[in-house]
Amino acid sequence: MDGTKGASVDDARNTTGARPSSHARRQFLRTGAGLAGAAAAGAVLGRSGPAAAVEADPANLPPNVPWWSKYLGDGVEAAPYGLPSEYESHVVRRNVRWLTATTESSVNFTPIQDLHGFVTPNGLCFERHHAGVAEVNPVDFRLMINGLVDTPMVFSMEDILRFPAVSRFHFLECAANSGMEWRGAQLNGVQYTHGMIHCVQYTGVPLRVILDQVGVKPNGTWLMAEGGDASGMNRSIPLEKALDDAILAYAMNGEMLRPANGYPLRLVLPGWEGNMWVKWIRRIEVGDQPWFAREETSKYTDLLANGKARYFTWEMDAKSVITGPCPEKPVLHKGINQIKGLAWSGRGTVKEVHVSTDGGRNWMQARLPDPVLPKCLTCFNAEFEWTGDEVLLQSRVVDDTGYVQPTMNALQQVRGVNSIYHNNAIQTWLVNKTGEVENVRLG
Amino acid sequence: MDGTKGASVDDARNTTGARPSSHARRQFLRTGAGLAGAAAAGAVLGRSGPAAAVEADPANLPPNVPWWSKYLGDGVEAAPYGLPSEYESHVVRRNVRWLTATTESSVNFTPIQDLHGFVTPNGLCFERHHAGVAEVNPVDFRLMINGLVDTPMVFSMEDILRFPAVSRFHFLECAANSGMEWRGAQLNGVQYTHGMIHCVQYTGVPLRVILDQVGVKPNGTWLMAEGGDASGMNRSIPLEKALDDAILAYAMNGEMLRPANGYPLRLVLPGWEGNMWVKWIRRIEVGDQPWFAREETSKYTDLLANGKARYFTWEMDAKSVITGPCPEKPVLHKGINQIKGLAWSGRGTVKEVHVSTDGGRNWMQARLPDPVLPKCLTCFNAEFEWTGDEVLLQSRVVDDTGYVQPTMNALQQVRGVNSIYHNNAIQTWLVNKTGEVENVRLG
Repeated sequence: MDGTKGASVDDARNTTGARPSSHARRQFLRTGAGLAGAAAAGAVLGRSGPAAAVEADPANLPPNVPWWSKYLGDGVEAAPYGLPSEYESHVVRRNVRWLTATTESSVNFTPIQDLHGFVTPNGLCFERHHAGVAEVNPVDFRLMINGLVDTPMVFSMEDILRFPAVSRFHFLECAANSGMEWRGAQLNGVQYTHGMIHCVQYTGVPLRVILDQVGVKPNGTWLMAEGGDASGMNRSIPLEKALDDAILAYAMNGEMLRPANGYPLRLVLPGWEGNMWVKWIRRIEVGDQPWFAREETSKYTDLLANGKARYFTWEMDAKSVITGPCPEKPVLHKGINQIKGLAWSGRGTVKEVHVSTDGGRNWMQARLPDPVLPKCLTCFNAEFEWTGDEVLLQSRVVDDTGYVQPTMNALQQVRGVNSIYHNNAIQTWLVNKTGEVENVRLG
Repeated sequence: MDGTKGASVDDARNTTGARPSSHARRQFLRTGAGLAGAAAAGAVLGRSGPAAAVEADPANLPPNVPWWSKYLGDGVEAAPYGLPSEYESHVVRRNVRWLTATTESSVNFTPIQDLHGFVTPNGLCFERHHAGVAEVNPVDFRLMINGLVDTPMVFSMEDILRFPAVSRFHFLECAANSGMEWRGAQLNGVQYTHGMIHCVQYTGVPLRVILDQVGVKPNGTWLMAEGGDASGMNRSIPLEKALDDAILAYAMNGEMLRPANGYPLRLVLPGWEGNMWVKWIRRIEVGDQPWFAREETSKYTDLLANGKARYFTWEMDAKSVITGPCPEKPVLHKGINQIKGLAWSGRGTVKEVHVSTDGGRNWMQARLPDPVLPKCLTCFNAEFEWTGDEVLLQSRVVDDTGYVQPTMNALQQVRGVNSIYHNNAIQTWLVNKTGEVENVRLG
């Protein structure tokens, strides 16, 4: 189940970051006298309160002058483009080898258990490709708009960059996120159950501005967005959404899109399922009906118990998950602990998040640290006291439309069990008596 | 003036990203038949409006099926930690070799001319060190709080992570940003004149929560924050700020701090000069008066014309700059062009940004795309028409306290010309008749 390839990350860091000589010197210090007196982590004593800390007893202190304060570190020329600390090399995207036949048409997962706040760093945004990462030279890139328009046009990246930009924070969730839970796979890790999601600040041009340039004819009511990868991934999009809040985005978190995320241009459809956010977008055709493309008929539809399929279910319903404690983050301390997590809604803005420590019998309101933005991940946190007994942790979001995140049973009463898409059910973590956390199905 | 070290970035990308075999195959395609028919960028014709685009004339199109749509790309195992496109390798931090004696006590600059939105990606946040980058193993890290407190305490990172977190977007500006302009250096590049700034989402624990754990004695009115680098960088901070909005931050843009930015813990003082945001923070002492440390007496003060010095000028006054056009981004097109830029205020929230194309005689209001957040970078944009004549571009911010960004003359009437710190004057770009952009002093 663990498809991590951590080695290449470390290689990259060694190339860009520390110079070999200073790196070798530091390794010596780490394993030598420098740390001889260092206290082990985890020795938490005394003092009640939201979180306990070590009192200032010299026996608990690291050496008075830690090794790192004795030497000059790298100067400002060392890393023109910086990378994470070598101590964070476990924080990587991971994939599940058995999920698909090849990794070019597979998915990897955002390590949400190790992240903080609601921004996902660009290097850790999950990927889902249909023919691998298209590597496009932006000089050669063109976007064509044709079909039911007054003036078919072709835009270069230079053209796109000349329009006034907007910059908005939005989550992107794969419709299959948590899909492996639908029939009880119960993967043991929140990275695998809920990691097909990321959230960045997108910058680009509102699609309505570009459509205004070409002039949509009165009978133009649907768009077909087509990707420039080898699969030519395409989806039908109602004109109404395009004119509402769709963005042709070229930047994420300040810099140009990463290749895996559609460089140099992708479609952003705030709140809608990720498959429609066409990457490496090369063409938009305007028509008067949907195309019923492969990815909206045989895929991304939900086969119901009666043999009919739900389709065009674009909006991602409200969902939340606890990212700590979780299977990767056991409970280490008796007493007060933090519950932290993420909530979102494709319908609008998160209004409340409730957490339960008894499997949904009682709920308490979690804090939502500001800012809380529409169609954006929202952080929540709350305290719970662990006495060493079994605990069933759950979270439940309510959005500003009044929609309440359902239980799995409630969802399956409507949808049956055939689908793997659009699972937004409440997730349950069992904290066992050793503090380890397991993924369980509760109801 | 150009101290770029681009090579190591490319090395890192080759290690982590494309597999050698596919990379070689793509190189062949790029230089071979694959691009033979590709149109060169920049041939923008016809059609008026906010931005012109090429009409769909087959002669202007790239090959009907671009090379990148003919082959599978990298799969999801290729890059556990992703990196930017190889076509963006020019977007790096740069330093100025002549500025300081060594790079361990120097600064590099954020490439704000190539960024979009207000988030700075972690790898491009400018650095300023006093003894190089301290590389701290988080297991060994300790933060001590002592002095006028009820219970001196020592916190491990595990302790810090157990408190409820806040996540806020804040700019960090070096007090010396634009300092080389003060006496007319007039560096030709906005990366050098205004690049000692970045803006990320910080996650951490409010400092007041930690101070509440130790209990500040009634006569405790000042804090001394001390860094764990070899310089032991320290600054005095009034208790009032600590209790207001200060954060002990461990994460930026979702992931743990980068080593260059204080991993694993730094002080965040929203709106205040960057030097006080102590990195690798190892100790906070509570006292009843300021320490008058080196960095707040001989440095980070402004020597006035009368021989007295302004000191403890912590709050960064409102400032703005146009990041395109700018010396690195000439005007390429006659007709409608975009002005884009960044504005900020340490006093609060940006209320308005005005732009001028005639050196400040006439002003027009720029758009401020949402969200506009307090003590955070704010994007602005506006159109201007270029006919091929000389243009003097300026921007001016007004914040929600009513403070208006001053001209250089107005600022120097009060401050004189001795200081290099706290220059928030209006910046002027001259667009010459070839469309090139020069840094000029106007008044």
